[in-house]
Amino acid sequence: MLAPSIPGYDYGKVQRSPVTVDEFKRLQSVVGFTDDDRQALSDAGELFADEAEALVDGWRKIIGSQEPLSEWFFGPDRKPDDEYKAAVKPRFVQWVVDTFTRPFDQTWLDYQEEIALRHTPAKKNKTDGVQAPPLVPLRYVLAFAVPVIADMREHLVRKNLPVDEIERLHAAWTKAVILTLTLWSRPYTKQDLW
Amino acid sequence: MLAPSIPGYDYGKVQRSPVTVDEFKRLQSVVGFTDDDRQALSDAGELFADEAEALVDGWRKIIGSQEPLSEWFFGPDRKPDDEYKAAVKPRFVQWVVDTFTRPFDQTWLDYQEEIALRHTPAKKNKTDGVQAPPLVPLRYVLAFAVPVIADMREHLVRKNLPVDEIERLHAAWTKAVILTLTLWSRPYTKQDLW
Repeated sequence: MLAPSIPGYDYGKVQRSPVTVDEFKRLQSVVGFTDDDRQALSDAGELFADEAEALVDGWRKIIGSQEPLSEWFFGPDRKPDDEYKAAVKPRFVQWVVDTFTRPFDQTWLDYQEEIALRHTPAKKNKTDGVQAPPLVPLRYVLAFAVPVIADMREHLVRKNLPVDEIERLHAAWTKAVILTLTLWSRPYTKQDLW
Repeated sequence: MLAPSIPGYDYGKVQRSPVTVDEFKRLQSVVGFTDDDRQALSDAGELFADEAEALVDGWRKIIGSQEPLSEWFFGPDRKPDDEYKAAVKPRFVQWVVDTFTRPFDQTWLDYQEEIALRHTPAKKNKTDGVQAPPLVPLRYVLAFAVPVIADMREHLVRKNLPVDEIERLHAAWTKAVILTLTLWSRPYTKQDLW
């Protein structure tokens, strides 16, 4: 599942995040993320082992249907850069797998910072050598939490799990997504306000 | 329900937000907020007409139990400033009522910007004339989405509603909370990155 051969997927090979494991433990406490949630994410990872790409396809369909979400993948001709989209996709799928399976340690924190930077002028487009807009604005990154959270619920419901089990897995996913987006907001934020 | 007599509650009397109704419509589209969600929020508002304070009490209990969340209410002696907490509370309760009942128009956008500013050095402490820390860091504002979203689900479950009805009301609440926090992130964000 670790797929280290994805171009531009540099997990474990990026600079240190300014966010420490101790700080992240405080954030985990705020969202109530426990060992049970870690287990639930792992269980969800097994349940969706063959569906990470299908999840991403669903989200990209939403992205593709709304220009305020899709225009960050446009080339200089203001049309979708299909090569760029194709290059990003396996990393997006791998983000799903990593969220389910990776421990939330310093290496994981470092990579969340890297992903965040790749949405900002500091690093956007550089991994893939493309000429798309230099930014995905923070407001769209944050608002996209809702489709990512809601869509997972629909996928869980379709698996005909008991209601309590849907709730357990969905709660863990919701916490993981909000924690991730909280980390991704960091390089967008003014000095000392994050 | 409008309670215009709350000290420091300046709905309709604050400066214009840089976020326009048109921009907000794009964000509503991203989270999939529809007229049905608006109706669901209104229905939830009736269901919780007498419980907005109980909801806030639950969240404040979480805040009070974790210093990374509560220290922004401390006075210069590093102890909770109880007068400050008491002054903020009715406005927090009114935020719940407003989220259920107010149209998401320019006046509402303006007030979300004002609330956001009151969490940053631009305006924190000024409304109540207190000497607490000058900031609630963005990471804690965003991460607190989880207790606010999860807790509402528990309250809905306790009302013994049909599963579909819980889902309908909770989905609308989730969208409203994420939209709100997205707006609140604006004054924290670096120039041109929001």
